[in-house]
Amino acid sequence: MALPIRHDPPIITLTTDFGQQDGYVGAMQGVILTICPTATIVPLSHQISPQEVQGAAFVLYQAFNYYPPHTVHCVVVDPGVGSKRRAIAVRTSHGIFVGPDNGLFSLVLSGENINVLEAITLTNPAYQLSEVSATFHGRDIFAPAAAHIANGVHLSHLGPPAINLVRLEYGATVYPRGQEFESQIIHIDHFGNLILNLTLPDITDPEQVSFVIKDTVIESLKYTFADVEENRLLAYVGSTQDHIEIAVRNGNAAKRLNVQTGDTVTVRFG
Amino acid sequence: MALPIRHDPPIITLTTDFGQQDGYVGAMQGVILTICPTATIVPLSHQISPQEVQGAAFVLYQAFNYYPPHTVHCVVVDPGVGSKRRAIAVRTSHGIFVGPDNGLFSLVLSGENINVLEAITLTNPAYQLSEVSATFHGRDIFAPAAAHIANGVHLSHLGPPAINLVRLEYGATVYPRGQEFESQIIHIDHFGNLILNLTLPDITDPEQVSFVIKDTVIESLKYTFADVEENRLLAYVGSTQDHIEIAVRNGNAAKRLNVQTGDTVTVRFG
Amino acid sequence: MALPIRHDPPIITLTTDFGQQDGYVGAMQGVILTICPTATIVPLSHQISPQEVQGAAFVLYQAFNYYPPHTVHCVVVDPGVGSKRRAIAVRTSHGIFVGPDNGLFSLVLSGENINVLEAITLTNPAYQLSEVSATFHGRDIFAPAAAHIANGVHLSHLGPPAINLVRLEYGATVYPRGQEFESQIIHIDHFGNLILNLTLPDITDPEQVSFVIKDTVIESLKYTFADVEENRLLAYVGSTQDHIEIAVRNGNAAKRLNVQTGDTVTVRFG
Repeated sequence: MALPIRHDPPIITLTTDFGQQDGYVGAMQGVILTICPTATIVPLSHQISPQEVQGAAFVLYQAFNYYPPHTVHCVVVDPGVGSKRRAIAVRTSHGIFVGPDNGLFSLVLSGENINVLEAITLTNPAYQLSEVSATFHGRDIFAPAAAHIANGVHLSHLGPPAINLVRLEYGATVYPRGQEFESQIIHIDHFGNLILNLTLPDITDPEQVSFVIKDTVIESLKYTFADVEENRLLAYVGSTQDHIEIAVRNGNAAKRLNVQTGDTVTVRFG
Repeated sequence: MALPIRHDPPIITLTTDFGQQDGYVGAMQGVILTICPTATIVPLSHQISPQEVQGAAFVLYQAFNYYPPHTVHCVVVDPGVGSKRRAIAVRTSHGIFVGPDNGLFSLVLSGENINVLEAITLTNPAYQLSEVSATFHGRDIFAPAAAHIANGVHLSHLGPPAINLVRLEYGATVYPRGQEFESQIIHIDHFGNLILNLTLPDITDPEQVSFVIKDTVIESLKYTFADVEENRLLAYVGSTQDHIEIAVRNGNAAKRLNVQTGDTVTVRFG
Repeated sequence: MALPIRHDPPIITLTTDFGQQDGYVGAMQGVILTICPTATIVPLSHQISPQEVQGAAFVLYQAFNYYPPHTVHCVVVDPGVGSKRRAIAVRTSHGIFVGPDNGLFSLVLSGENINVLEAITLTNPAYQLSEVSATFHGRDIFAPAAAHIANGVHLSHLGPPAINLVRLEYGATVYPRGQEFESQIIHIDHFGNLILNLTLPDITDPEQVSFVIKDTVIESLKYTFADVEENRLLAYVGSTQDHIEIAVRNGNAAKRLNVQTGDTVTVRFG
């Protein structure tokens, strides 16, 4: 039998929609430090909009690739807590992911460079708190699982194999329509920058492309903010895995254009 | 004389109403790391509403029980800073608590399973910053005390015994009125869930109970969110030490019912 | 050649305007932990207002002095990202500062007790991520630099000396006008307290001074909040390096007086 492999210091990232005014994240951190006292606990975000699974999936996608491969990423955005949705852990070539099986890991697991090595359902009560509440599995199931895994416990001890994980349609495809595509805004960041479900390889000619949002046309792909004047709109290749973004230099594009996540951006060539 | 007992790694949690846009929490963390360089500093919350002692007491109560018993919990919500209110440290069977003596620890210390072992007033200047400001004891008195205690310094070195600690009436009692009780909302969480000053043992018959808020009646205690349809109100046993909570499944009960902390919920039996 | 000096545990503070709902801070933390796995990463603030260089400079100034001298302070508020502004690291007698050369470190470096020992431009690609984006130097240049420096790498390896660092006019001077001065509000904190560009040595007679904001006159310098009644305005010597502040006891002075950063406060003597 293989011995536990323990990395020092173990790293556990947390992503939740719990906000930071209550004691919920505090309780999860306490559970982790009780089980794995040397863990480095890193907050990715606790400001995911309540029950926004897609938003959490994107935040994880922005960050996971920059962590060491032994990192445990614990993500709890869990509108189905208490229902029959599964609790899972997925070991990959670039991180171990722990959370509810509701699509949170879709975007990460569909990455080109990531190999899924093992997926299990978190059913073994030996790796949960002794009392499991009906409404806070972040504290009672996911935090203990993440901490035990960070301690080097093999996934196979935590439960049986899980197949057919839930995948979200992330809308990352574009639909051709003559010389135009339709893309969607998949995330609006803290600065009001719009991130599209479109990556650089989708743009055949960066000089000739334009982006239309409602009545506003943004011409060509720029390299960076400084390529336009203050308060002007620009499209550019963003910092998240080559996604195309739209921004206002030193301003807020979402407010300027009055758009929301899910809204359509038309992409024109020629 | 007893030798210092030092736990590795020492854990210090922080709970404040300082928010996170200023350098106040940053300064406290620097003081801690200067005195106790290996401390794991864990934020419980820095988003307590300004000077809301009751809110901080509840957040601490939600989380403290999940930490190792040697954890130092430093809580600074301090409307009386600069007045004659005492600065205290309290050692218990489940954590050491450091902060102003204004009732912050009331809820924790009234717990059934907690034994108070020692309480002192933080008066020894040797364990404070060399200059103590009139307005920021979090940095100048509480952070140094927490760090020295995490280092294993005995409480008796930090000051003389403290008796008659301030206790808040947390409203955790219920007032019988025929077949009805009146309870209060003691906390509204990030999701808009209402937490009542009522625990499961207060409910004699969970099948027959109903909750009345203004003109809205919520029938019977449910087990979890998934027991009602989306956007429906429910009452259930919450995740915080058996307190009764009222929520909207995947919605916001506080907004739906237009209620605030302190508002009354009538509990009817039969 | 000098050997690397590595302090255990290395401390890296982060100050950004990235907020906490995206994965940007998460990515920076991952980069740091990949390069320097034992780093203690401390958030000063990620809630700096977007592109507010002065605000970030002040937050850093509130906190840096309380950290051990080997601490690396990484500050990324970077409206000029992608332009020709330099990326710098500055080693001082009290901390090493990493960030864009846009004045972020002005206030710290102008301190009386701080000696600048070395300043360099971060140009060596060996200490950057292998791909540097045009829009996220926090992740690609500043986080790696901070982590390598925390690992003990000498600044001279990261790039050539930098001279003539950008300095902000912080407005920290006062302009005499008869028996009056004009000062400015340089920061408004989470509680709505107003911090002025005025320190205790500027006040010749604390008993005789008064402060005029619009039509409101605040008489004399108090010692602490408890020196006035609830909801009353007071001026006092704040906790940040002797700066004068104006507050409402257990209230919000910024809302009461309807003022903003940059607004004028007239200081009268006699």
